[in-house]
Amino acid sequence: MAKEKVILDMDPGHDDAVAMMMAASHPSLEIKAITVVAGNQTLEKTVRNALNVASVLNLKGVPIAAGMSRPMVREQVIADDIHGETGLDGPVFEEHDLQRDPRHGVDLIIETLLASDGDVSILPTGPLTNVAMAMRKDPRIVSKIKRIVLMGGSYQLGNVTPAAEFNIYADPEAAHVVFSSGVPIVMMGLDLTRQVRCTRQVIDRMGAIGNRVSKLFVDLMEFFSKTQEEVFGWDAPPLHDPTTVAYVIDPSIFVTKPMRVDVELRGDHTYGRTCCDYFGVTKREPNAEVATTLDLDRFWDLLEDCLRRYS
Amino acid sequence: MAKEKVILDMDPGHDDAVAMMMAASHPSLEIKAITVVAGNQTLEKTVRNALNVASVLNLKGVPIAAGMSRPMVREQVIADDIHGETGLDGPVFEEHDLQRDPRHGVDLIIETLLASDGDVSILPTGPLTNVAMAMRKDPRIVSKIKRIVLMGGSYQLGNVTPAAEFNIYADPEAAHVVFSSGVPIVMMGLDLTRQVRCTRQVIDRMGAIGNRVSKLFVDLMEFFSKTQEEVFGWDAPPLHDPTTVAYVIDPSIFVTKPMRVDVELRGDHTYGRTCCDYFGVTKREPNAEVATTLDLDRFWDLLEDCLRRYS
Amino acid sequence: MAKEKVILDMDPGHDDAVAMMMAASHPSLEIKAITVVAGNQTLEKTVRNALNVASVLNLKGVPIAAGMSRPMVREQVIADDIHGETGLDGPVFEEHDLQRDPRHGVDLIIETLLASDGDVSILPTGPLTNVAMAMRKDPRIVSKIKRIVLMGGSYQLGNVTPAAEFNIYADPEAAHVVFSSGVPIVMMGLDLTRQVRCTRQVIDRMGAIGNRVSKLFVDLMEFFSKTQEEVFGWDAPPLHDPTTVAYVIDPSIFVTKPMRVDVELRGDHTYGRTCCDYFGVTKREPNAEVATTLDLDRFWDLLEDCLRRYS
Amino acid sequence: MAKEKVILDMDPGHDDAVAMMMAASHPSLEIKAITVVAGNQTLEKTVRNALNVASVLNLKGVPIAAGMSRPMVREQVIADDIHGETGLDGPVFEEHDLQRDPRHGVDLIIETLLASDGDVSILPTGPLTNVAMAMRKDPRIVSKIKRIVLMGGSYQLGNVTPAAEFNIYADPEAAHVVFSSGVPIVMMGLDLTRQVRCTRQVIDRMGAIGNRVSKLFVDLMEFFSKTQEEVFGWDAPPLHDPTTVAYVIDPSIFVTKPMRVDVELRGDHTYGRTCCDYFGVTKREPNAEVATTLDLDRFWDLLEDCLRRYS
Repeated sequence: MAKEKVILDMDPGHDDAVAMMMAASHPSLEIKAITVVAGNQTLEKTVRNALNVASVLNLKGVPIAAGMSRPMVREQVIADDIHGETGLDGPVFEEHDLQRDPRHGVDLIIETLLASDGDVSILPTGPLTNVAMAMRKDPRIVSKIKRIVLMGGSYQLGNVTPAAEFNIYADPEAAHVVFSSGVPIVMMGLDLTRQVRCTRQVIDRMGAIGNRVSKLFVDLMEFFSKTQEEVFGWDAPPLHDPTTVAYVIDPSIFVTKPMRVDVELRGDHTYGRTCCDYFGVTKREPNAEVATTLDLDRFWDLLEDCLRRYS
Repeated sequence: MAKEKVILDMDPGHDDAVAMMMAASHPSLEIKAITVVAGNQTLEKTVRNALNVASVLNLKGVPIAAGMSRPMVREQVIADDIHGETGLDGPVFEEHDLQRDPRHGVDLIIETLLASDGDVSILPTGPLTNVAMAMRKDPRIVSKIKRIVLMGGSYQLGNVTPAAEFNIYADPEAAHVVFSSGVPIVMMGLDLTRQVRCTRQVIDRMGAIGNRVSKLFVDLMEFFSKTQEEVFGWDAPPLHDPTTVAYVIDPSIFVTKPMRVDVELRGDHTYGRTCCDYFGVTKREPNAEVATTLDLDRFWDLLEDCLRRYS
Repeated sequence: MAKEKVILDMDPGHDDAVAMMMAASHPSLEIKAITVVAGNQTLEKTVRNALNVASVLNLKGVPIAAGMSRPMVREQVIADDIHGETGLDGPVFEEHDLQRDPRHGVDLIIETLLASDGDVSILPTGPLTNVAMAMRKDPRIVSKIKRIVLMGGSYQLGNVTPAAEFNIYADPEAAHVVFSSGVPIVMMGLDLTRQVRCTRQVIDRMGAIGNRVSKLFVDLMEFFSKTQEEVFGWDAPPLHDPTTVAYVIDPSIFVTKPMRVDVELRGDHTYGRTCCDYFGVTKREPNAEVATTLDLDRFWDLLEDCLRRYS
Repeated sequence: MAKEKVILDMDPGHDDAVAMMMAASHPSLEIKAITVVAGNQTLEKTVRNALNVASVLNLKGVPIAAGMSRPMVREQVIADDIHGETGLDGPVFEEHDLQRDPRHGVDLIIETLLASDGDVSILPTGPLTNVAMAMRKDPRIVSKIKRIVLMGGSYQLGNVTPAAEFNIYADPEAAHVVFSSGVPIVMMGLDLTRQVRCTRQVIDRMGAIGNRVSKLFVDLMEFFSKTQEEVFGWDAPPLHDPTTVAYVIDPSIFVTKPMRVDVELRGDHTYGRTCCDYFGVTKREPNAEVATTLDLDRFWDLLEDCLRRYS
C-alpha cells in the first residue's frame, strides 16, 4: 500500500511531540516536511523543541523549517501555563546537530505542495498561521492539498476561553482562511480529544516499553499531567494532537460527523470559536468532518505500537 | 412553610404550558402574576395561549398581562417551526371568559415587585424582554427580585443556531441586561433540558392520570414530539421550561455549578450565545448557577404529582 | 396657522436649555410634554435642570416627567466634562415650586401620542432612550409620530470618540430603534451644529437684550465656552440642540439631504457612529433628512427673536 | 542630496499610473522595486497595467513583481466601476517586452528591505496586503522601513461605503497590521485627496506638454473623469495616489496632523473605516501623520514638472 504523504505543521508542545513520535514511526506515513509555528510557545522555542524531539526520534532527511512567529492579524498569545517556559518542559534533551531547513516554513509548505501530485495531507497541530499564509501567498496550493487533518476547535466547551480552543483562538483569522478554503478538513476538536485522557495507567503502560522514546513520552506526560490538572482540574490530561496522526493511520478508530464549521472573528466573548452546525440548522453545506468519539482502546494500542517501533 | 412567590414570565409555547400546569398546582408556590411575551409566537398568540391554558387549569385571581411584542433591539424571530401556527398547536381549547389584565406586562412586573417584600422570584421561560424592560424602566426593582430562575442558553450546543439557544437568541440584548443585573440567577440551559426527554413512556404515564390537565399534557406532547423530531431529529422532545418550576419546588432534584455567564451581542455566528465559564478560565466572579444535570426519575415523579392535583 | 405640537425630549445640558428657551417662547410651537432622560448628567440632575430652566421661563401647564435613568443596553456614560457637576453648571437658580409630573417619561410620551391626531413631533436633544423605549413598549405610537427632529450623530467627525457623537454613543441601541422605525427623521448632526458657533459677539448680542432669560443664556454660554475650549479646542462652542427647535419653527434656514443612516452597534472603534450614506453608494432608501448647512445669520436672528419675547 | 529610496506598492489603476509617472521621473527619488497587488482589479490585470505603464515611462532596471492576489482574510472586492474592465481602461498600450520579476512581491519587499540600510520608504497606493504579509512573514523588516507614505482611509466620508475608503476596505486586516506596526506612517486619505480634483483645466494643461507620457495622462484622466462622475457625482475626479509621491518629493506642499488611527475590523457598517482621532479625545499616542490639506497650485506645478521631464 502506498504511504500517506504528510506535512506536520506544529508548535511543540507536549502533545505535538507525541504526534511526531507516532508519525515518524509508523510505516504507513511518509513525512515530507515539518513546519513549525509559534503557538504553545514563541517560534524560537517551538523550533528548538521540534529539532530536539526529531533528534530523539532519529528523524533524518525530513526538512524542519521555522514558519510564522506571529499570528496573521491578532496579538500573540502563548500557552506557557500548560507547556512551561520552554514549551516542552519536563524532559532534558541531549545536544545534537540537527539543523533547521533554511527556508521559511510558509515557503516550504508551498514548495512541497507544488512539487506534489496532490497527494499530500497537512496535519496541523498548532495555530493555522503557516497553512493560511501559504494558501494566501500562493493560492495555487489550495487545490493541491489532499486534505487537512487538524487538531483545533470545539463544538461544546472551549479551553482558553469559555468559547474557544487555543489553536484556533491563537489565530482565528488563519483558521477562517483554512475553514473557508474548500479543502477537505477533518477536525479533531476538544469534544474528541477530551476523551483521550492520558491516565497514570497509560503512562505506566507506555513507560514499560522501556526504549528512549517511551522514556521521553513518560517525561512529557509527567509534566503535562501536572499543568492540565492545575488549569482545568483534569485528573488525567487530554492528549490532543496525536489524534490527527492516528486518524491518518487508521480513520476507523474515530467517529466523525460532517458539519458546517464557521470561525467567529468578531464576538466580544466568542472570538475564535468554531461554530459547528451539529444539528444542521443552518442548512449550509458541511465543510469539515468533525470527530465526535473514538475507540479509545484501539487508540492506545496504536500509540503503543508506534512507540514499540523505536529501538 | 411559607409559599414561594413567583412571577411566571412566558411565551406559551408547549413547554411553557407544562410549566404553568406545575406552578398552578403545587402548594409550595404562589403565582403573583403571569406576564406574557412574544417569543415562540407573536404576542397576540402567546397571550391567547396563556389565557387558554389558565382556563383549563382553572387558574383564577392571577393577573395575566400582555408584555412586549418585540425584542428590545433586534428584529423579531419566532419559533413556529416548533410550536406551530398558533404557538400551541395540538390541543383544541374551549371558549372561556378569562380576560387579560389591562396593565402592560412590564408595568405589572414593576408593580408586583415594588409592592413586595423582596420575596418574589421571576421564572422566565421565554425571551427576557419583559424582565429587562422592567429593570431598565424602573431600576428600583432590581434589588427587589429574590432571584430569577430562567430557561435559556446553553454552554455546549445551541438550537436555533449552532451557538445560541432560542430564548436568548430571540432577545440577546435583554438577556445581557438580565445577566449583568446582579440579581441571583439560576439558568436551566439546553445542557440540562436536553436530558429531560419526554418519551412515549412518559406521555403514556401522564396520560394515564386521566384528568383534563393530563389530557392537555398529552395533546401538547403529541404535537411537540413531532416537530422536535422533524427539526432536531430527537426521538423524544426535551421538555425545557418546566425545569424552572421544578427547581423552585425542589432544587435538590438538580445539580448546578456557579459560572460566569456572558451573552454575546456582537458575533457574526454567535449572536445570543451564553458564554458560560465552566472551567473558570476567565477568573471572573460567577453570576449564575447553571444547571448541569438532574435526577430525572424524581423530576417525572414531581410532574406526575402536579398533574394528579387537578381534579 | 396651526401651532406645531411638539414633545421636547431632553437631558439639560446647556444647549438643551437654550432649545427650551426657543421652544417655550415661539408662537408657532405648542409644547405638549417635556420628557427628561439621563445623558449629559444622571437623571436626577437633568430633571432638576429641566425644572429649573422651565421655572425661569415661567413655563406652566406643560408636564415635565422623568424618563429613563440608564441606556437600554450599554453601560451609562455622561458628559460631565462638558456640562459640569450639575449638568448645568454656570447659572444659579432660585428656588421654585415647579414639580415633575408623576408619570414615567416613557409613559408620558406614549399617552401624549396615543391621545393625539398624529400631529405631534418629537424633538430629542439627548440620548434616544425615552423615545426608543416608548416605541418598543407600545409599538402603536410609531405611526402616530409626525416626525422626529433630533440632535445627534455625525457623518464626518465624532466628538466623544473619533467616530461617534455623544447623544448616539450614549445609547446606540436606542438610536438604532429610532432610525430603523420608519418614522420621518430630521437629523441635526455635528456636521451642522459645528457651524453654529456661539462666539463672544453672539453672547454679547443676546446679553444686550437684558431680560432674565437672556441673562440665563449668557450665564450658560460663559461656562459652556470654557469646557468646549478645554476639551475640543473650540474658540467658540457649537450650540447643538437649539437647531432642532429652529428647524421646526423655520426649516428654510437649513439645507438638508436625504441619506440612509445606520447606527453602528458592533464596531470596536465605531460603536455609536451614524453611518450616513452621503453619496448614495449603498443604494438603500434614505431614512433621514440630514442637515448639511444653514443660514447662520437667520439662525441668530431667530434666537434673538425668541429671547426678546420674554419680558 | 541623497535620493530618497522607495518601494512603490500599487494596484494600477488610473491614479496609481500617475503616481508612477511622478516617481519615475523625479530626480530626488530612486525606485528600488515596484510590487503589485490586487485591488482596483485582479492581480493579473494590475500586473499587466504596471508593466504597460512602466514600458511607456521607459522604466528599466526596476524589478516589478506580482504580489498578493487576494486579501489576507476577507473576500476579495475590486473597483471595476471606477477603473474599468482592465483596471486601466482608456489608453491603448503598445506591445513591449518588459517582464515581471520572478520573485513574489512579498518576498521582493522583504529582500529589498533586508538588503537596505533602513533608508527605504514604502509608498502603498493600493490595499496593504503586500506590506502586511511581508511584515508578518518576516518581522525583521519592520524596523528596516524608514516610513510608509500611503494613500488610503478617511477621517470624514468614505467612498466604497459610507464609512470606508476602498484601499483600506479591500483589506482591513492588512491595514490593521500596518497601522499597528509602529512604523512611521503618513496617511493621504480622502479628506486630502478629494481636494486634488483633476479639472478639465488641469487635463488641458498637462496635455499641452505634448510628450508620450502627458498623452497617457490625458487618456487616463478622460476615462477616470467619466466613472468618478457616474459613481460619486464629481465634476472633476480626485487624483488620490500621486499625493504620496508628491509628499516624498516635497512634504512642504502638505499640511499634516498627528493622529491615532485605528482600523475598524468588526463593525457591521464600518468595516475598514480608519478611525482618526482628530481631536485627541482618546488620549492615545498618534501613530500617523494624517494629511489635512495642501497647496494645490504647487501640487499641479510639481506634476507638470514631472511630466515635462519625459522626452
